[in-house]
Amino acid sequence: MTQVGPGRPRLEPRRRAGQTPRAEILDAAAELLTEKGYGSTSTRMIADAVGIRQASLYHHFGAKDDILDALLGGTVGAPLELAERLAGLAEPAAVRLYALAWFDVSQLCDARWNLGALYLLPELRTERFAKFREQRDELRRHYETLAAAVIAEAGNNAVPGAELMPFRLVESVINIRSDEGAAPEYAERLIPDAMLRLLGWQGDLDRTRAAALALVP
Amino acid sequence: MTQVGPGRPRLEPRRRAGQTPRAEILDAAAELLTEKGYGSTSTRMIADAVGIRQASLYHHFGAKDDILDALLGGTVGAPLELAERLAGLAEPAAVRLYALAWFDVSQLCDARWNLGALYLLPELRTERFAKFREQRDELRRHYETLAAAVIAEAGNNAVPGAELMPFRLVESVINIRSDEGAAPEYAERLIPDAMLRLLGWQGDLDRTRAAALALVP
Repeated sequence: MTQVGPGRPRLEPRRRAGQTPRAEILDAAAELLTEKGYGSTSTRMIADAVGIRQASLYHHFGAKDDILDALLGGTVGAPLELAERLAGLAEPAAVRLYALAWFDVSQLCDARWNLGALYLLPELRTERFAKFREQRDELRRHYETLAAAVIAEAGNNAVPGAELMPFRLVESVINIRSDEGAAPEYAERLIPDAMLRLLGWQGDLDRTRAAALALVP
Repeated sequence: MTQVGPGRPRLEPRRRAGQTPRAEILDAAAELLTEKGYGSTSTRMIADAVGIRQASLYHHFGAKDDILDALLGGTVGAPLELAERLAGLAEPAAVRLYALAWFDVSQLCDARWNLGALYLLPELRTERFAKFREQRDELRRHYETLAAAVIAEAGNNAVPGAELMPFRLVESVINIRSDEGAAPEYAERLIPDAMLRLLGWQGDLDRTRAAALALVP
């Protein structure tokens, strides 16, 4: 048995991916929540999957809600940071929107578990998740602002309301991943490409993609 | 107390919308599953919400899975029927795709509860729901076939893989409805309009919409 920070010694050797006990708990929880469901997963099951006592888990997270909140926050934090940085750049809106969408689709695909599948949980509509919802709304507004700027730059007939759709196209990778049972490799290119066409933007996609990838972390 | 078909008399007067006990059970279950979550809802809670005994519920549905399956089947049955009819018509693919998308978005919006939010439940990946998944896959293939025909008719530069996106745009109404807390009235027009633009189709949307609505039941 090895000591793993706060809490009691492990019941057995480490069995999850993750550099820290906290990361191992998050990984185990992500698997259980996406494979078994939120209502069917207990903190006890998460602790068992990590190979720690439930009391040790509570040193890191006060409740199952807190674990879900940390997992969800992880899906919007990085794209939100990029969106804020892109908002201050002088590149054409099409390049900046492409960069944000590429990065966001990639991170939703690269995550070990399809955490976006949890966005539609009814629990997320409670006060407990108000901060997460606000962050996700902020990210959505960044998409809408960039999309409106693309429409303005393209100067032609985008359909009314088209600026609402890019955020939804990015989210669709969650459904594709769920249906295909694996992260779709083609999506990081297809989704931003399709997004610009939907907005009525008829420029050179190859050049825009190359310029966008230079902005992606 | 009134006798309501098979099972014991009701504990109390009917309290759900629905013409039959079966419809009342489905309505109560749809509310609980979308508002509380699948794992947190029991057949007992559903029976209580209808005002019947749990034993009476089992006269209509053998288990909670069977209720979920009936609810999910209800979301794909009508659009699948329309898609099959549209496949045999001579109208341009853009008109037929528009009709299917309009109808599908409308029925996802008009349903009393946002049942599409259940599509991402991990339980749906089990053998129990293989038939539902097959029906939904069939509907998805209809969208892809129509979208590929639109791209062929439009004869210009749709991005590679664009035919995969119309089905996903339709599904996005589920996320919009969840985020906005109400069915978005603008979606039945926005989503099919945006879909044709995404496919590189630059025809007259007003004429196409009018022709499509003549095909919608």
